[in-house]
Amino acid sequence: MNTQEKIIIIGAGLSGPLLAILLAKKGYKVEIYESRTDMRTANISAGRSINLALSARGIRALRSAGMDEIVMKEALPMEGRIIHDKTGNTKFMAYSGRAGEHINSISRGGLNIILMNEAEKLGIKIHFNMKCTHADFENNSVVFKNYETGKISTETATAIIGTDGANSAIRQTMFENGRALRFSFSQAYLQHGYKELHIPPGKNGSFLIEKNGLHIWPRGEYMLIALPNFDGSFTVTLFHPFNGENGFDALTTPEKIQAFFEEEFPDVIDIIPNLLHDFQTNPTGSLATIKCYPWQVNGRFCLVGDSSHAVVPFYGQGMNASFEDCRILSEMVDEFKGDWSKIFTKYQSSRKKDADAIGDLAEENFYEMRDHVADPVFAKKRVLETRLEANYPDYYSKYAMVTFKDKLPYSVAKSLGTKQDEFLMDFCRDLTDLDAVDLDGLFRELQEI
Amino acid sequence: MNTQEKIIIIGAGLSGPLLAILLAKKGYKVEIYESRTDMRTANISAGRSINLALSARGIRALRSAGMDEIVMKEALPMEGRIIHDKTGNTKFMAYSGRAGEHINSISRGGLNIILMNEAEKLGIKIHFNMKCTHADFENNSVVFKNYETGKISTETATAIIGTDGANSAIRQTMFENGRALRFSFSQAYLQHGYKELHIPPGKNGSFLIEKNGLHIWPRGEYMLIALPNFDGSFTVTLFHPFNGENGFDALTTPEKIQAFFEEEFPDVIDIIPNLLHDFQTNPTGSLATIKCYPWQVNGRFCLVGDSSHAVVPFYGQGMNASFEDCRILSEMVDEFKGDWSKIFTKYQSSRKKDADAIGDLAEENFYEMRDHVADPVFAKKRVLETRLEANYPDYYSKYAMVTFKDKLPYSVAKSLGTKQDEFLMDFCRDLTDLDAVDLDGLFRELQEI
Repeated sequence: MNTQEKIIIIGAGLSGPLLAILLAKKGYKVEIYESRTDMRTANISAGRSINLALSARGIRALRSAGMDEIVMKEALPMEGRIIHDKTGNTKFMAYSGRAGEHINSISRGGLNIILMNEAEKLGIKIHFNMKCTHADFENNSVVFKNYETGKISTETATAIIGTDGANSAIRQTMFENGRALRFSFSQAYLQHGYKELHIPPGKNGSFLIEKNGLHIWPRGEYMLIALPNFDGSFTVTLFHPFNGENGFDALTTPEKIQAFFEEEFPDVIDIIPNLLHDFQTNPTGSLATIKCYPWQVNGRFCLVGDSSHAVVPFYGQGMNASFEDCRILSEMVDEFKGDWSKIFTKYQSSRKKDADAIGDLAEENFYEMRDHVADPVFAKKRVLETRLEANYPDYYSKYAMVTFKDKLPYSVAKSLGTKQDEFLMDFCRDLTDLDAVDLDGLFRELQEI
Repeated sequence: MNTQEKIIIIGAGLSGPLLAILLAKKGYKVEIYESRTDMRTANISAGRSINLALSARGIRALRSAGMDEIVMKEALPMEGRIIHDKTGNTKFMAYSGRAGEHINSISRGGLNIILMNEAEKLGIKIHFNMKCTHADFENNSVVFKNYETGKISTETATAIIGTDGANSAIRQTMFENGRALRFSFSQAYLQHGYKELHIPPGKNGSFLIEKNGLHIWPRGEYMLIALPNFDGSFTVTLFHPFNGENGFDALTTPEKIQAFFEEEFPDVIDIIPNLLHDFQTNPTGSLATIKCYPWQVNGRFCLVGDSSHAVVPFYGQGMNASFEDCRILSEMVDEFKGDWSKIFTKYQSSRKKDADAIGDLAEENFYEMRDHVADPVFAKKRVLETRLEANYPDYYSKYAMVTFKDKLPYSVAKSLGTKQDEFLMDFCRDLTDLDAVDLDGLFRELQEI
């Protein structure tokens, strides 16, 4: 490959800098263009962190860039789900029956800064305040507007990669050329939105609730979750219908909000001191799954990460899937020796089914989290799964295949995992004594499906 | 209802004028805005007709506007599929075992003119050369550009209905407000495109091939079809992959086109005199299914027809589904006494599942037409289905439910029809003697599924 080649990456969010690092380490001259200002220098109010769940696929991709150790120092392990019922009782459900298999709560901003710092250390230039307005497929170039000067500029490169997220400008240009590119596209909004709330740290940075887990208050139509932050606080998110009797549209007064939380989530009222204020002033976010195809144009432009497959957050795989994109693309750069047309064509055709699978799994997991985790049959199934995992190194539940296998294609995890789920839910339906189950026999039966 | 209310309909294509007639007959003041010039006065070269298959749902909708008789005078009945094999032999497959159940080939342009003439007779003003550029949901208005003068104008009305087709400007505005409206949207392109060709009339307007059928040359990856026109000609369409060994991209020389047709469709070469010229100069069209939701905004704007659910042409239901939209919406105007917010809300929530169903059915029928009709098991199934229809007034095949039932929801036709199809394909797989089948028993079994 000709390592004098210039590569443009659009978007300095999470996958942009990671991909830039991977390519710069091969010798490419990489430049990143980012529409926002530099979060490291801007006077962004500290405090609230948004956190993400980093798991095996993301860690493997970070490792391929030599970034895993520095990142994991900032991560908090979450060993399982902690389910809160309406009376405030909690129940722990391990994510795996194997030691060491947990997910990791990490600050989105902190991780982004680590990656940008490393990218710059490798000589990668990050152009901030440069908004990509559109791609020009005829001239193989890309157009930017400088938000500070208003100046419009046009750049070209051997490869132009859009890691510019769910509202990607590169994808938008593909959409506008829909007929010529036969660009299939879908955006599917949930009828639920989300609102972020905050549990502050206790005294001396202590945690007010159990720190090593992902807290869930499953209520069928509603769901509250909380993930721990390094400073002892928790980022809390209410997933909630827009419409209906208790929907966002109906919770319009402090009295109604207070009454709703007292009824549904009584154990959080004392630990979310700014509940009423935050509920009324924080924006209500919407949630959508985005799919599209093709991902590449002219063997020169390619979408990577959320720009090509935005997912809802319920499997904790959005970032992990995007990082896995970067690892796979990077491996193809080696395999096809820098022939970008081959790289992008092979990348999109092999990766598309897995992006679809994680998009579907994330939607399905919404129902599992808000609903099934409170179902006694599901609880029995989870116990059996963790016992199987503890006793059979080859056994992985669907959740574990998605979360702890770092190479198994998502599409395989989905099809095999769904079969296992159906089998085990049937198996547990009338099961009364978990301890009487012949685990050996069950394991062999599961191997056959 | 207040019949002094003004209603704006955007698009004078097929469903626009039909809906306008239905509403004008209730006393509403309706105006239609159309981006193209008036096809009745423009010097459009005559000759080629594009034809459509009008069936029960479309006819029922026309009847509700008092337009069925005048339209049916221009229609040619097609009693079944006429399957051409590679040696030029043909086989007739009836669409139904009941007398009178056929589909009707009709000229798209001719039908459009009939509907526009009637609309104007009722006092509906059609503004031509007025391109809707976008809707303004904040001000409940809609913006037009006059293609002759360049003038921009803004109009408002109690109800603004977008019958502006697969590239709807109203839908585009909804898409641009995607997050606020939680506007789910998908466009799915087939990897096949189409090319139109032409079989001219024989002497004295005679038909060069059988006139009362829909001709199909099924070849798996390729498919040629021909529908009769009133003047003795046939509109021929090749549905064909864009890429691959014999794809559109590969058929680049007269020699290759000629060789391809000689191999695959030898019996049409003599009757398509301009084959090579037309193949090389006619555009290659693309095919997409479009779905979206919601269809209405503010209780004032609503999408109807292709603007809300563009389908691929393989079930012959695009126009019929759009006409059925008009009938259902018109009935809701009566039911909800002109309360447009209720009308549009109920319309979209009740109709969406049926629009999805016909979109899916049309995609599935592509595989049936190009492939299964040449399968001997499928042929046996069709024989049994026509016998069942001939003997049991209550029996309808999936095709017949979609095509000859004029009120059964598409979603019901799809779910019940799919079950019947699966049952009958299984039943026919090893069947050797069609005449030995116990029809009574089979009918009873089908009633149970």
